[in-house]
Amino acid sequence: MIRGKKHKSAVRIAKGTVQPPSVNPEVMNAAKGRKKKDYSADDYVAGILSGDRTILSKAITLVESSLQGHQDKISEVVERCLEYSGKSIRTGITGSPGVGKSTFIESFGLCIVNAGRKLAVLTVDPSSAKTKGSILGDKTRMEKLSAHPSAFIRPSPSAGITGGVARRTREAIILCEASGFDTIIVETTGVGQSETTVNSIVDFFLLLMLAGAGDELQGIKRGIMEMADAVVITKADGNNVNQAERARQLFSNALMLFPPPASGIRPGTFTCSALENRGIEELWDNISKHISHTRENGYFNERRRKQSVTGMYDAIAGYLQDSFYSDNKISALKEDIEKKVYEGKITPYKAAAELIDKYRNR
Amino acid sequence: MIRGKKHKSAVRIAKGTVQPPSVNPEVMNAAKGRKKKDYSADDYVAGILSGDRTILSKAITLVESSLQGHQDKISEVVERCLEYSGKSIRTGITGSPGVGKSTFIESFGLCIVNAGRKLAVLTVDPSSAKTKGSILGDKTRMEKLSAHPSAFIRPSPSAGITGGVARRTREAIILCEASGFDTIIVETTGVGQSETTVNSIVDFFLLLMLAGAGDELQGIKRGIMEMADAVVITKADGNNVNQAERARQLFSNALMLFPPPASGIRPGTFTCSALENRGIEELWDNISKHISHTRENGYFNERRRKQSVTGMYDAIAGYLQDSFYSDNKISALKEDIEKKVYEGKITPYKAAAELIDKYRNR
Repeated sequence: MIRGKKHKSAVRIAKGTVQPPSVNPEVMNAAKGRKKKDYSADDYVAGILSGDRTILSKAITLVESSLQGHQDKISEVVERCLEYSGKSIRTGITGSPGVGKSTFIESFGLCIVNAGRKLAVLTVDPSSAKTKGSILGDKTRMEKLSAHPSAFIRPSPSAGITGGVARRTREAIILCEASGFDTIIVETTGVGQSETTVNSIVDFFLLLMLAGAGDELQGIKRGIMEMADAVVITKADGNNVNQAERARQLFSNALMLFPPPASGIRPGTFTCSALENRGIEELWDNISKHISHTRENGYFNERRRKQSVTGMYDAIAGYLQDSFYSDNKISALKEDIEKKVYEGKITPYKAAAELIDKYRNR
Repeated sequence: MIRGKKHKSAVRIAKGTVQPPSVNPEVMNAAKGRKKKDYSADDYVAGILSGDRTILSKAITLVESSLQGHQDKISEVVERCLEYSGKSIRTGITGSPGVGKSTFIESFGLCIVNAGRKLAVLTVDPSSAKTKGSILGDKTRMEKLSAHPSAFIRPSPSAGITGGVARRTREAIILCEASGFDTIIVETTGVGQSETTVNSIVDFFLLLMLAGAGDELQGIKRGIMEMADAVVITKADGNNVNQAERARQLFSNALMLFPPPASGIRPGTFTCSALENRGIEELWDNISKHISHTRENGYFNERRRKQSVTGMYDAIAGYLQDSFYSDNKISALKEDIEKKVYEGKITPYKAAAELIDKYRNR
């Protein structure tokens, strides 16, 4: 890896100001010229705030890095971007494979950018951790959207570890917002653990469903439906229109059985066709109204604030767990004790006490 | 408090044997004669295994005690009872206030004991932590059942702390099973955090619902419906029969939209009348069949084993959190840092890192 000498940006962000610093031209030229340049935190902040996509993209890569040096640098960048962030509408979109997520997000995204907004799409897909090549994949599957000047599509290939998804996605959102994106979509596959995490980050959670024979949620994890702020039946076109409408009605009835969400707004149900571009605008209208309404009644801000506080406690819990289970004594004993518990030879609490004793006397 | 001298039971349980030790008559007499007797672990084990309800009851009180001395003793008792436990059917029952839980459990319980089974009902009700007098309350509200020789009703008044509910309830179940109860009902109110906990302890989770105008789940926390192995519409009598049947149908349709539970068995929906004693036997038949079926396909044992392993990890997580947040430096800083996060002045991760640094350098 070729590393250029560090460029010190002359720009510093004074605390409390909201004026984005201008970009050091040397940095910008360097950014265009060299691919593996080692930017300083100043470079990153300046580039992000000026809307430079290459630097934004590299910063998100840093967010995903597990190297300590990268982590320290990006932490500083994120902290400095924080005051420029928070102004977007953050929508989580989930649905199992086959529901037509990419096609939906392409149409939905185009509707959003055509309304004059700037859209960043972050995909959280554990499976793509294996392929790594999913950036190309996402751009192919959302061809028109990815070519649009107001859209930025960015997969998170390193989202394998559940504990890290919240942090990485939250920090990527902050960077995108600081870079001028006023609409964020976070896409998940609906089959992993990441939906609960994503729900703890977004303002609106959208569940995509396919009309089918009673198995609509096949593959979708239990608990996801109760997080939805709206359920959308996709592929409501051609011969499928009536079936989609029936499915929508079923979901509408089912959602009435749930207690109303904390927002106080009952989840809406929609049908849409990305192919025929029907139902998409109505959906975005609905989300916009939901956001306006919750901004007015205070729920929007309260939810974000609580999400942040929860994020802090989750991060602490993650650290505590990591330091416990990475202890040599613990990792030597854990498997054996877990086996005893599994076989019913000791109670879970006795087992926990044994491991904790070892940990305390380390 | 009068404490008698410790009675050493002559009986010891040899490892690997399953023969319950006989009870030292002196202990038993003492148990009847003095209320505040300080039993040894041997006394407890012998009394529990012989089916002595007074000692069982006192042991459960010890499970709920937070005194270290009590904890050490009861841990030993629970460990020694472990090999005699595990043979019961454990059913969790939840429903919001007004659904008729007590009346239902009275009928349901009588159906179970009349079928020749021995039933222990443990109630996990945070609100009763305040009144303490709920033992009398429970016995009053389930008059016939509590008078039945094969039934044992035991509230857990100290269930205020969510983290402790799992441990206490799990240990109380072990003691009841070792004492000969082959059917356990764990009752929760449906409005707190304890349902998820209870679901991680029982073999079958029953949700009681009332027919109403679209607000059936008012007061029930989100997520509970997706845990249900069966939904029962209560008070299906008199003028309410048709409405109850319609509600049952609605729930049946809604549950079809969920992915099938891990057991592979779709949740059933029932109507019942405790007043007219209709639908109760059918429900118990359904649960029995569910248990037989999952015992055959291996799910029953696998679920219990996984529950135990989860219990161990939950207990460790609880310990780690407690030791972190009880640290003086942390408790001095926490509120202030949480406020900064809430106000969006620092990221949740920066805040977590600050607290963790303090904790590490303590």
